[in-house]
Amino acid sequence: MNEPKNIAIVGATGAVGVEMLQCLEQRNFPVKSLTLLASARSAGKRTVFRGEEIEIQELTHDSFDGIEIALFSAGGGISKEFAPSAAKAGAVVIDNSSAFRMDEDVPLVVPEINGAAALDAPRGIIANPNCSTIITLMALAPLHQAFGLKSVIASTYQAVSGSGAQGILELEGQMTALATGQPVETKVYQHQIAYNVIPEVDAFTDNGYTKEELKMLHEGRKILGLPELRVSCTCVRVPVLRSHSISVTAQFDQDVSVEAARAAYEGKPGVAVRDSPAERLYPVPLDTTGTDDCLVGRLRKNLVFNNALDLWVVGDQVRKGAALNAVQIAELL
Amino acid sequence: MNEPKNIAIVGATGAVGVEMLQCLEQRNFPVKSLTLLASARSAGKRTVFRGEEIEIQELTHDSFDGIEIALFSAGGGISKEFAPSAAKAGAVVIDNSSAFRMDEDVPLVVPEINGAAALDAPRGIIANPNCSTIITLMALAPLHQAFGLKSVIASTYQAVSGSGAQGILELEGQMTALATGQPVETKVYQHQIAYNVIPEVDAFTDNGYTKEELKMLHEGRKILGLPELRVSCTCVRVPVLRSHSISVTAQFDQDVSVEAARAAYEGKPGVAVRDSPAERLYPVPLDTTGTDDCLVGRLRKNLVFNNALDLWVVGDQVRKGAALNAVQIAELL
Repeated sequence: MNEPKNIAIVGATGAVGVEMLQCLEQRNFPVKSLTLLASARSAGKRTVFRGEEIEIQELTHDSFDGIEIALFSAGGGISKEFAPSAAKAGAVVIDNSSAFRMDEDVPLVVPEINGAAALDAPRGIIANPNCSTIITLMALAPLHQAFGLKSVIASTYQAVSGSGAQGILELEGQMTALATGQPVETKVYQHQIAYNVIPEVDAFTDNGYTKEELKMLHEGRKILGLPELRVSCTCVRVPVLRSHSISVTAQFDQDVSVEAARAAYEGKPGVAVRDSPAERLYPVPLDTTGTDDCLVGRLRKNLVFNNALDLWVVGDQVRKGAALNAVQIAELL
Repeated sequence: MNEPKNIAIVGATGAVGVEMLQCLEQRNFPVKSLTLLASARSAGKRTVFRGEEIEIQELTHDSFDGIEIALFSAGGGISKEFAPSAAKAGAVVIDNSSAFRMDEDVPLVVPEINGAAALDAPRGIIANPNCSTIITLMALAPLHQAFGLKSVIASTYQAVSGSGAQGILELEGQMTALATGQPVETKVYQHQIAYNVIPEVDAFTDNGYTKEELKMLHEGRKILGLPELRVSCTCVRVPVLRSHSISVTAQFDQDVSVEAARAAYEGKPGVAVRDSPAERLYPVPLDTTGTDDCLVGRLRKNLVFNNALDLWVVGDQVRKGAALNAVQIAELL
């Protein structure tokens, strides 16, 4: 067991921050002290960790004295501004934002896939990947190991939790408004998300792809160590509260079969196969809420490519897609 | 203008049957007489067409005397049993079920794509294609004409209207139950559909694909006249009321660009481009409810294949995906 550490959580009142607290508690993470940091607006609020009340403090550049691990989940702007201060104070920063992910001297880590990379963090910053990317790669990494991954085509079904607590409030608020005949308010998304799906996640870039869609490409290449990997992705927000689903077509260097794919998942941590067409068994987002494993189903030979599989993977966006993965990185240190 | 015809609608009380009535009315279809047929349970009910009350009659093998066009939308079993009687009585049957679609002597018609095929129906039966297939092909046909379609990879986001009126009732009922703290009832789907997505539409087949997923392959080949076309599809039910969305990767024989693709849609009936990333403009299902056109957006160069595009198409499943397409076929006769 590692020696207990002084931990800070930046963005402790957000959806991911709250889940980080739960992950630390549930996994019996060796915590010596816990400092909860948030904006001035949330400072003074109290939360409970392992039966003890902790007061939330305002985040400043001086918040990190004596902190050994700082878990950041407060948006890219906050990370860019405060992560260097935390690192300078001697903390290892595990950052959930996209601020540093593609920096060459910042490792981008999914512990089950490239955990060793976390041990070489020259700037004292380790990046937590994009949520859809983590969940998709949890399904693809065992297959890559067995068959050599060549290309990925993915369409996502992303929960509103990806927009934080305000995304969840927006969907639930719209549902209540519709059920009670009140006007529907739209703040977080470009369109009503209740009874709708929206093919826009994060900002558009010049080539017509959104940033979210390109994360699957760029972060996937970095995490798998495959600079030539081809990835094309369509990211879609759906009216689901907190688990992401991804429909994936993956092409491999070597021949694949459904049986060989199932075998490739055997004994792999963090991912489980839930796939039996005869029993109408496959993963759905409602069933994976609050679970650690990513679940893979609908495994079948793709009908366009040779050496390719179609599959469906579901994972809790707040948990493995964010908070759990960050805490797992902390466990590596 | 064609001579007015004696029309029958079989399944007149279903979601698609009701929409067929509206399409006939809105498009000023030349109707001499209208016979509305349904199960004994619905017989005796009354509905209004062009200001006149019509009583719904029980469907029997003798229902088709003098009928010239019979629009069927009451499920495959009813079509198999009663469509031959209607054809024998001299009617041309336009069947919305999957019962006859793949029969060699039954044309499978999307009027904008292969309308001429409707004129050669030796058995007196014309099949209306699967809804997701119609909407996807409305997006692909103009591109096929311009660049030669080679393969399709699709993931669908299908509305509950695809399961008929009972699918809509199930989603709305679950939403009301959740908003009022009542227990959620699940009858139509294997899982709760509210706040969920379900990667199962129609029955599973031996290769792990569902029938719905294989319709896109087999019906697509038949309608486009491309027996070698490769199609791999994942069909997913989403908590949307009545428009289907499809995320499509299409590979072509010839080089393509986004600009050339936009140009290919110019002047094409039944399909419109709604695509401007700079204005965050793209189609969503809520906006297309009750519209006739299929809307295409998110056009971009695919990042895996050469000569390939990614796109997003949305269409009203009840309308162009079913009732409208059937009435358009009737207009060809």
